[in-house]
Amino acid sequence: MKNVKLHEMKKVEIVVRGEDLDFVIDLLERAGVSGYTIIHNLSGKGSHGFHEGHLLFNEEDTLVMVISVMPENLVEAVLEGITPFLNKHSGVVFVSSVMVSRVEKFSGSISTSAGGGS
Amino acid sequence: MKNVKLHEMKKVEIVVRGEDLDFVIDLLERAGVSGYTIIHNLSGKGSHGFHEGHLLFNEEDTLVMVISVMPENLVEAVLEGITPFLNKHSGVVFVSSVMVSRVEKFSGSISTSAGGGS
Amino acid sequence: MKNVKLHEMKKVEIVVRGEDLDFVIDLLERAGVSGYTIIHNLSGKGSHGFHEGHLLFNEEDTLVMVISVMPENLVEAVLEGITPFLNKHSGVVFVSSVMVSRVEKFSGSISTSAGGGS
Repeated sequence: MKNVKLHEMKKVEIVVRGEDLDFVIDLLERAGVSGYTIIHNLSGKGSHGFHEGHLLFNEEDTLVMVISVMPENLVEAVLEGITPFLNKHSGVVFVSSVMVSRVEKFSGSISTSAGGGS
Repeated sequence: MKNVKLHEMKKVEIVVRGEDLDFVIDLLERAGVSGYTIIHNLSGKGSHGFHEGHLLFNEEDTLVMVISVMPENLVEAVLEGITPFLNKHSGVVFVSSVMVSRVEKFSGSISTSAGGGS
Repeated sequence: MKNVKLHEMKKVEIVVRGEDLDFVIDLLERAGVSGYTIIHNLSGKGSHGFHEGHLLFNEEDTLVMVISVMPENLVEAVLEGITPFLNKHSGVVFVSSVMVSRVEKFSGSISTSAGGGS
């Protein structure tokens, strides 16, 4: 990567029922996340948090996945908001490391914190 | 991450033709995977496993992506099932590391094995 | 992974407006990428590269995500093509590490370079 400098960020992927999308978007915006992408009309299967083996996702549910790339310092606020929600609602969240070339697209205020190790 | 403990899991993403979705779902369930999310109506381009350059994906194909997060000890069974299939059918599989906050959502029987290194 | 050998590759995910899909596909093909998957009809929110806070993605836009897995030596060409484009157009690109079991599906010419560390 000689000419394009890459910065490490975190990708947070949240799958919830379509009716819970507004909760997730509101949570991301309150956490200060600058952008997100939504994949609609997913199907799936999963277990409810409280009732293992009680399937709440099925082919009839309409699920959405919200994908958001953010600096690591915002991840905790997102997880602290979404984790209690997922104790009571269907859904999953997972976090991974990604590299981005245009760090300013992901937050206007992270110029000093971006690029830190995972 | 002070208040939300994260556990490392593996994310397996499988892209196949829509007609092969049932094979993938059956494979995941036999491997003991507890949940998955399906993205429908994808398009794409790829090469067939046996015939390099022979394009089997194209804009007319209906592809699906099955995303499943699982403990690392289930990945091998999934790959041993899907890899021979992809030798004869269009599709790709890729595996990456993700962190999850609610490990019990991904398998009811991994309380001692989750969190192992990649 | 006793029976299925895994190789490290890079996954490049590019989200752009639907009208810019052809640019991205052309860029990937010129870079020598052998395949890609397209997720259609996404929605999202993001900031334009030049005008922070000027939202160009919204629920009305039709966005697409192009997912492509490639050997690391192709990533720079893709980023050098897409980064200037994203300075002037809505969109994001992120790069992550994935493992694949069938490296020959992703490029016909990487037999010696695949598997290098990230």
